[in-house]
Amino acid sequence: MAKHFQHVAIVGKHQAPGIRPILEEIAEFVTRQGLDVSLQHETALNTGITSYDALSNEQLGERCDLAIVVGGDGTMLGFAREMARHGTPLVGINQGRLGFITDISMEKFREALAPILAGDYEKEHRTMLEGAVWRDEQNIFEGLALNDVVVSRGATASMVELRIDVGEEFVANLRADGVIVASPTGSTAYSLSAGGPILHPSIAGWLLVPIASHTLSNRPIVLPDTGVVTMEIVAGRDASVNFDMQSLASLLHGDRITVRRSAHKVCFLHPKGWSYYATLRRKLRWYEGVS
Amino acid sequence: MAKHFQHVAIVGKHQAPGIRPILEEIAEFVTRQGLDVSLQHETALNTGITSYDALSNEQLGERCDLAIVVGGDGTMLGFAREMARHGTPLVGINQGRLGFITDISMEKFREALAPILAGDYEKEHRTMLEGAVWRDEQNIFEGLALNDVVVSRGATASMVELRIDVGEEFVANLRADGVIVASPTGSTAYSLSAGGPILHPSIAGWLLVPIASHTLSNRPIVLPDTGVVTMEIVAGRDASVNFDMQSLASLLHGDRITVRRSAHKVCFLHPKGWSYYATLRRKLRWYEGVS
Amino acid sequence: MAKHFQHVAIVGKHQAPGIRPILEEIAEFVTRQGLDVSLQHETALNTGITSYDALSNEQLGERCDLAIVVGGDGTMLGFAREMARHGTPLVGINQGRLGFITDISMEKFREALAPILAGDYEKEHRTMLEGAVWRDEQNIFEGLALNDVVVSRGATASMVELRIDVGEEFVANLRADGVIVASPTGSTAYSLSAGGPILHPSIAGWLLVPIASHTLSNRPIVLPDTGVVTMEIVAGRDASVNFDMQSLASLLHGDRITVRRSAHKVCFLHPKGWSYYATLRRKLRWYEGVS
Amino acid sequence: MAKHFQHVAIVGKHQAPGIRPILEEIAEFVTRQGLDVSLQHETALNTGITSYDALSNEQLGERCDLAIVVGGDGTMLGFAREMARHGTPLVGINQGRLGFITDISMEKFREALAPILAGDYEKEHRTMLEGAVWRDEQNIFEGLALNDVVVSRGATASMVELRIDVGEEFVANLRADGVIVASPTGSTAYSLSAGGPILHPSIAGWLLVPIASHTLSNRPIVLPDTGVVTMEIVAGRDASVNFDMQSLASLLHGDRITVRRSAHKVCFLHPKGWSYYATLRRKLRWYEGVS
Repeated sequence: MAKHFQHVAIVGKHQAPGIRPILEEIAEFVTRQGLDVSLQHETALNTGITSYDALSNEQLGERCDLAIVVGGDGTMLGFAREMARHGTPLVGINQGRLGFITDISMEKFREALAPILAGDYEKEHRTMLEGAVWRDEQNIFEGLALNDVVVSRGATASMVELRIDVGEEFVANLRADGVIVASPTGSTAYSLSAGGPILHPSIAGWLLVPIASHTLSNRPIVLPDTGVVTMEIVAGRDASVNFDMQSLASLLHGDRITVRRSAHKVCFLHPKGWSYYATLRRKLRWYEGVS
Repeated sequence: MAKHFQHVAIVGKHQAPGIRPILEEIAEFVTRQGLDVSLQHETALNTGITSYDALSNEQLGERCDLAIVVGGDGTMLGFAREMARHGTPLVGINQGRLGFITDISMEKFREALAPILAGDYEKEHRTMLEGAVWRDEQNIFEGLALNDVVVSRGATASMVELRIDVGEEFVANLRADGVIVASPTGSTAYSLSAGGPILHPSIAGWLLVPIASHTLSNRPIVLPDTGVVTMEIVAGRDASVNFDMQSLASLLHGDRITVRRSAHKVCFLHPKGWSYYATLRRKLRWYEGVS
Repeated sequence: MAKHFQHVAIVGKHQAPGIRPILEEIAEFVTRQGLDVSLQHETALNTGITSYDALSNEQLGERCDLAIVVGGDGTMLGFAREMARHGTPLVGINQGRLGFITDISMEKFREALAPILAGDYEKEHRTMLEGAVWRDEQNIFEGLALNDVVVSRGATASMVELRIDVGEEFVANLRADGVIVASPTGSTAYSLSAGGPILHPSIAGWLLVPIASHTLSNRPIVLPDTGVVTMEIVAGRDASVNFDMQSLASLLHGDRITVRRSAHKVCFLHPKGWSYYATLRRKLRWYEGVS
Repeated sequence: MAKHFQHVAIVGKHQAPGIRPILEEIAEFVTRQGLDVSLQHETALNTGITSYDALSNEQLGERCDLAIVVGGDGTMLGFAREMARHGTPLVGINQGRLGFITDISMEKFREALAPILAGDYEKEHRTMLEGAVWRDEQNIFEGLALNDVVVSRGATASMVELRIDVGEEFVANLRADGVIVASPTGSTAYSLSAGGPILHPSIAGWLLVPIASHTLSNRPIVLPDTGVVTMEIVAGRDASVNFDMQSLASLLHGDRITVRRSAHKVCFLHPKGWSYYATLRRKLRWYEGVS
């Protein structure tokens, strides 16, 4: 019988202390299931593991049909963006407290990985934001974000003012500490701190959420993810923009940040029986607790 | 050249004072455009207008290819539910302050209606909620809602506790004054008062929003509208449920309220250039105003 | 040396299963410290304990210089209102999960009570709300509240509209599901569910918090507790008012609910080292938890 | 009959275009009421008005028994801090849109000022925050604030973590974009944007409000203004602190910011009939508007 996966990439948060034996353990386990294993080049270099092929992200994306990421949600976010255009499915193993998208604990990785490697898993896709910054019609910055695109006021400014449009339609002028455009994945990250709702990963929409809005009559909105969201800097010194963690500072009045849905989606695999709602309850104590 | 519409129904908030001459003015105007006009039977009966055919809602749905509703959002909501399964497009003319979905003012109805009747308009569809109440596996109540399905605690109870599931997945147990499942249309109604975000009408999702939740770690969530949302009464005396304004009181522990997307959508026509975001700014002063 | 307290009243949530031996244990412990013990008449009657004097609440207030309340926050709230005009200090022992104001666990009552009986404790006072309802200048209802005065819409009304005045000053017209006037003690009860902030018990103010306000530009306000807050029913069928749990339904348009600070305060004793902020963190997981 | 005031200082937002003739008009008006007029030295210098004595802020505070401030709330805040220890009463005349504390319009200044100069006014006092920064037990920065003391994360940090104590009591550890300690005056400024409630100016309390808190179970709290609030930097690079607009950047882990109530209060005079609640409704459209 044909194997469900053939060639598995392993990627680790290489700066984490004690990561090397963990990665070796996982690699051995996968090898023993009869699958080929390669290491991400950067992971191999930094951990000094030489027993497996080391491949660049590009090569991983082309050759591997599954990637196991060992680390927290931050490590996963970074690597997921790299794999997006290859569509490689991703599994997350977490050394510490489980994350939203890295939900297999190191302690139980064998019980969780075995069925996944054999083809028994929950699969879900996450939309990504494709952001760009335009100055005088020139594209001066671009990037992918799995969580959010955030425009923030400069440290010495009291606010930033943004004109928001969706497609050809004017939405509103927002004066605030900043404005977040978040994907469903990002709805449980910074957007939640700023007062946004939670979006189930299957919702085809973006959240538009102001941070410390200067008007009382604000309220977050869920926008369709089919149009282009444009945010133009109208006022406020030295604003900056972040696509996940990639950042451009010193924005000028008239600069426009555009956000559109990426043609690529990230594909996560979870153990059978995984539930998004259970993750919310566990991570956020959402509706759990005190009366 | 074939006319865009042939037969127009006119429906009025018949209890509004001074509505008769307004309806007559509109009916004459439509007739002069060369279209057939019928009146809703109930409207004709209550206003005493006899110069036009009077049709039941059923007959209107079958024979008319456009309905003009004269009144506020409440009148429109009620009639839209009646027309839903016929798919008849609806236009709203408002005597008073413009509503979210009745956005043509009486003063300017001619300029606004003429191009619409000629086929020049913005068209949008709104999803509807199909709700049902189950007791011991028996369906004891059902109804359609364009805005929301709301479960509320009884007047003498301090809260209601609901177990929420989506499809086969457990979501959370909510203890609150009540819980709202709102469509995008309903996101600017009661749900907004309870702290929910705004959903653009094109979003394929429902809002789940608690009213005065007993836990601090609550947060509204946008659920996919493809599954069935089930709310089971776990605790709290004498809870009730509303599908828009249709209501069932004295719910018992174990009663289950299910909400699924209706197979039918409501179709609204707006004057060319109509913008959902402009409506938000006008109606809610959303992000307008004071810094 | 003179004893700090002489005569201790014991009051119990008499309907709680298994309460009798608990009350006997506490009474014996207090007796062994050399203090006189009396039982609340209602508690004695319902538990069948006959070994101690049974006194009415009135007699308890006059003769006892300390009352020990065994139960939850609800039991304490009810009894505290009764003792308010006597100024009798109160200590709370909780059988179940500790409350905001009943913070000694049954398991450790000896270690906690001994120093308190000996005069070593934290003492704090809580303001109370004195509410009244006026119809045609007649006082038709009145009561004390330790938590809050709440006006709520009728079950079949979509909202209640209230005109709020403080002293001679007009504050605002509120349209909402209801309006809460809460004391600092009540700020962690229903008001918190409705979105209100927390008031430290020493703050000389009331919270005015709407429930599901119909305007976006609402925001809770902290009012001085020196003036009279008046809420007049302007619109909405069949509204009701609650002073803590004491309730009057079927309010009419023009009815006015007044709230003033009671001349009496409740006095709570806590074990040395007790901290209000620790109670918040424990009860609400306030700022505890997930990032 | 003795005059109510003798010597009036005039202070202007001197960088505002067209301010000179306005100040001259006001100065003449006051002179014609028989009162002595002096100009703030900085105002005289920048506008070139030489017909009146020019006094330093120090001299103004000592010699004048009333100061008229012409500008917006920002101008008033800055000057009010300077006058605080002299207790000089302040009146605000606003060229543009009326502010929270500058509530006499340029158009109507004569009708409004005349009775105030004659002793007919509403008087109110506002508490001030006295802030200091401590590094290794050294005071490295201090200042007064009428609105708020704000600690903010550095531009490149994802959050700041602060340990909050009040007096000797631990309150909580907050992880957020920043934390605001606001006076009642500041409750309608930045704190409101961050989700804080409104505090009536007579409330003897401070607001503690996080900006984009990283925990769901956060909620603003009103603290007594009698104790010292201490905020210690626990984590987060390059945090900064603002006392109103005076700022210190590059805070280090272990730095402590203390906030206590200033011994001085600001004294504002308003036209007879002035109402704080009316100001809220006008400035914030608080509870005004849409249902």
